[in-house]
Amino acid sequence: MRKAVLGLGISLDGYIARPDGGLDFLFMPKDYSMAPFFETIDVTIMGRKTMDAALRMGHGGGGGGPSSMETYVMSKSQPPGERNGAIYTKETPAKLLARIRKKKGKNIWLAGGGELAREFLKADLVDEMYLGIVPVLIGEGIPIFPSGFPQRNFDLIENKSYSKGLIAVRYRRSAKGRAK
Amino acid sequence: MRKAVLGLGISLDGYIARPDGGLDFLFMPKDYSMAPFFETIDVTIMGRKTMDAALRMGHGGGGGGPSSMETYVMSKSQPPGERNGAIYTKETPAKLLARIRKKKGKNIWLAGGGELAREFLKADLVDEMYLGIVPVLIGEGIPIFPSGFPQRNFDLIENKSYSKGLIAVRYRRSAKGRAK
Repeated sequence: MRKAVLGLGISLDGYIARPDGGLDFLFMPKDYSMAPFFETIDVTIMGRKTMDAALRMGHGGGGGGPSSMETYVMSKSQPPGERNGAIYTKETPAKLLARIRKKKGKNIWLAGGGELAREFLKADLVDEMYLGIVPVLIGEGIPIFPSGFPQRNFDLIENKSYSKGLIAVRYRRSAKGRAK
Repeated sequence: MRKAVLGLGISLDGYIARPDGGLDFLFMPKDYSMAPFFETIDVTIMGRKTMDAALRMGHGGGGGGPSSMETYVMSKSQPPGERNGAIYTKETPAKLLARIRKKKGKNIWLAGGGELAREFLKADLVDEMYLGIVPVLIGEGIPIFPSGFPQRNFDLIENKSYSKGLIAVRYRRSAKGRAK
């Protein structure tokens, strides 16, 4: 099955961005590459705010990943439809994933921030997590895991240290974490 | 110099306890031991709420560590003085650390939760951090790093995986993180 993978760089205090969306605290060590991760996915799902931030930075769909990537933007406020290289949708996480999984393909990257992660966790639809943790406390920002979902258990699959103190961890949903 | 070391077990979403103070989500893998950490410290500082939780669980000072440990409880609401095997104080983090450091000894364990960590980080007085990260998202609770302090940079010193997916990480304050 095509897995839904939450993949993000975060500060040690669990923020995906500063309050204004700034990402200056994140960095990519020379000995680390996202290429192996990008090889496993061909669809991106993000929230509307993340899409807007990507557009402001001059990117369209794909969220900084391979430009061939199919991109879905979840938005309750914006009309559904194709634009900006992305497909806007008002579907629930479950319906959107079901639609994507009707086609064969690779894994599905949940490239979004707090609200997106919360919605998918609430519905217990996060199969894996790839987190890059930088060794800085930024003190305030947009949390990767805002409260508002029930407990979810994971198994640690991988934990590697890279230069400049980046830790890359990979988790898979635990059988214990399955919704009843 | 006697280092101030923030040492705590946390959930993957950065909570030191559930909203009611519950710690049931934390666990101690067989292949992990806190003994080497306890050998490096002989003083504990905790917040009043953590002390109250320890008392409710039948512990006095020492916070679960060696019982010979000198324990300070920071409280704005309670009168200063010695009781419950601990020394209650209204001193600022800086003054309390200065007082402790007048005597020779080992490192100082900041065994407290959110508010305590925030006060010490605000004053840039956290020299090291030892975090045990369990592979569970609990969704809500008492955050280890509540917002309200400026950015602090750290260097990664150690990152080890243990059984059941516990990650033990150790950080040291980076020169970049020093207050001006």
